Amino acid sequence: MSEKVGKRTVRLSGRVGIISAAGVAGHKEAEGPLKDSFDEVYTDDLLGEKTWEKAESRLQTNAANHALKKANLSPQDIDVILAGDLLNQCISSTFGLRSLGIPYLGQYGACSTMAQTILTAALLIDSGGFSKAMAVTSSHFCSAERQFRLPIEYGGQRTPTAQWTVTGAGAAILSTNAPRAVIREVTVGKITDLRISDACNMGAAMAPAAADTLYSFFLDTNTSPEDYDLILTGDLGYIGSELLKKLLRREGTDISFQHDDCGKRIFNRKRQDVHAGGSGCGCCASVFCSDVIKRLYSEELKNIIFMATGALMSPTSSQQGESIPGIAHLIHLTAV
Amino acid sequence: MSEKVGKRTVRLSGRVGIISAAGVAGHKEAEGPLKDSFDEVYTDDLLGEKTWEKAESRLQTNAANHALKKANLSPQDIDVILAGDLLNQCISSTFGLRSLGIPYLGQYGACSTMAQTILTAALLIDSGGFSKAMAVTSSHFCSAERQFRLPIEYGGQRTPTAQWTVTGAGAAILSTNAPRAVIREVTVGKITDLRISDACNMGAAMAPAAADTLYSFFLDTNTSPEDYDLILTGDLGYIGSELLKKLLRREGTDISFQHDDCGKRIFNRKRQDVHAGGSGCGCCASVFCSDVIKRLYSEELKNIIFMATGALMSPTSSQQGESIPGIAHLIHLTAV
Repeated sequence: MSEKVGKRTVRLSGRVGIISAAGVAGHKEAEGPLKDSFDEVYTDDLLGEKTWEKAESRLQTNAANHALKKANLSPQDIDVILAGDLLNQCISSTFGLRSLGIPYLGQYGACSTMAQTILTAALLIDSGGFSKAMAVTSSHFCSAERQFRLPIEYGGQRTPTAQWTVTGAGAAILSTNAPRAVIREVTVGKITDLRISDACNMGAAMAPAAADTLYSFFLDTNTSPEDYDLILTGDLGYIGSELLKKLLRREGTDISFQHDDCGKRIFNRKRQDVHAGGSGCGCCASVFCSDVIKRLYSEELKNIIFMATGALMSPTSSQQGESIPGIAHLIHLTAV
Repeated sequence: MSEKVGKRTVRLSGRVGIISAAGVAGHKEAEGPLKDSFDEVYTDDLLGEKTWEKAESRLQTNAANHALKKANLSPQDIDVILAGDLLNQCISSTFGLRSLGIPYLGQYGACSTMAQTILTAALLIDSGGFSKAMAVTSSHFCSAERQFRLPIEYGGQRTPTAQWTVTGAGAAILSTNAPRAVIREVTVGKITDLRISDACNMGAAMAPAAADTLYSFFLDTNTSPEDYDLILTGDLGYIGSELLKKLLRREGTDISFQHDDCGKRIFNRKRQDVHAGGSGCGCCASVFCSDVIKRLYSEELKNIIFMATGALMSPTSSQQGESIPGIAHLIHLTAV
């Protein structure tokens, strides 16, 4: 059983955690500093498929299969799978996970999906109705770029605030059966909108949501940044990360010593042309499910906050003059 | 606490149920047989907004506010809201529910969203971490038509198998606090694909998923159609409903006496030009949250199965030669 702590945080039973996880990534990500942590990398970003969308589906299939294999499980052992992605109607997830035959709950949290799926999976297990659940998400630079921005072939100039959508996916299997990374508390994010409308500056659009969720979590749990080894955000990138720290300083909270961001970690800013850092559901999915989980399993990290952020817009909402609301979902994990 | 029953069904504690619900609908729906059951109907399908997408968001805002008002609750009383819709990146939900300031988990189940959000909300409450949860979804004929098919102004001819996307929304508030319609069991659907590829025949694409989920539920709970007052599907419409009955007859199960479908009920087929019936997330959302809930509250209905079906495709997946996978999520409810 879980219980509510403070206003918005839920404390879980302490029995549910991640028993297996896998991250896969594309060729550009494989040239970055985390290259050795991924479970599989691809030199061909089409993964042998005919379209970018089918390639993104394949990323999810592969991440899910790696996670299953590492846990010595088959798809029939999983009671429910929670997945989502950035593509219209979440087709990467549908077509990527169709062949597994696992009961499926589609999620939409934009780039917050990895945290959303893990926290929902953990709560569903804590309800007693499910033994094993899987959380999956992905993004692909080429499918995202042409859906949200411009045709790839156009070769458009990118603004300095733009982030580079990661080609990658992550899958995590949760259970009460001897997890090595336990989900302690979760905080569900609110739709937060400070009226940022620049679709080439997602970090700025998402930072207010991140500040809101993180600040609420500290209040609810009566803890502070010093209590954690790492406070890892999803894909705020270089600009959003600075804004998050600035917003929290206003509230008297300094996270600068503990904070890192998957969008900053996945690429080498000096050698790779990614402007404000990595983004996309697959950014924190591939980083969290490979590098971070490995460091939790080895107990190099013992007590961390993982908070993925999402921008809840579409090209249509932007064309109709809407601002870009953000959301941030938080998970507190410990090594055993 | 919940517990697993059989292979795929979860039996809840019996404490969680729907304490308030509201359905709103557009002008064509208001001319149908359920006109008096809706909580609000609109003569102007733009609802005073400038675009169809903003109008659809407004449907969600209004449905949510009606449900809150009927329960004498304010948004701050709700711990979490689960919502989704058919529009790219689920913008009806984001922009429709942004102003409420409730922690938000975006869902994507296509037209199965009403069942998915209600069942997930019920399980989250049964986990112990949340007291009150809201489930919301919507669709709008004009926003769906132009996104999935053709510009409205084109006035394209519709095939006889085509269904009419309902302009409507539904919102349900769940709690353990004196519910009048209790969630007994839920069965999460699997992505089911019998390689139907006609995007103008969604009923056929979704029927196999409905048959799979319903048959699994009967097996898991050791019950049969005669045990229920009503087996209500989401929006299979006239063609999909016949296919569902045919598929189940092959397994030796006859639901013809108990079965009805929201896509058949919402319009008057003889007087309204809707071909194979109603469809869209808002179809079963508006019917279930108004007419069906009222009949449960009055105990005219005492023991029902509500199963919403969704087609997990996008125009892009169809253009790339993919078939249309379906999904169906099931809820078993009783009057108190």
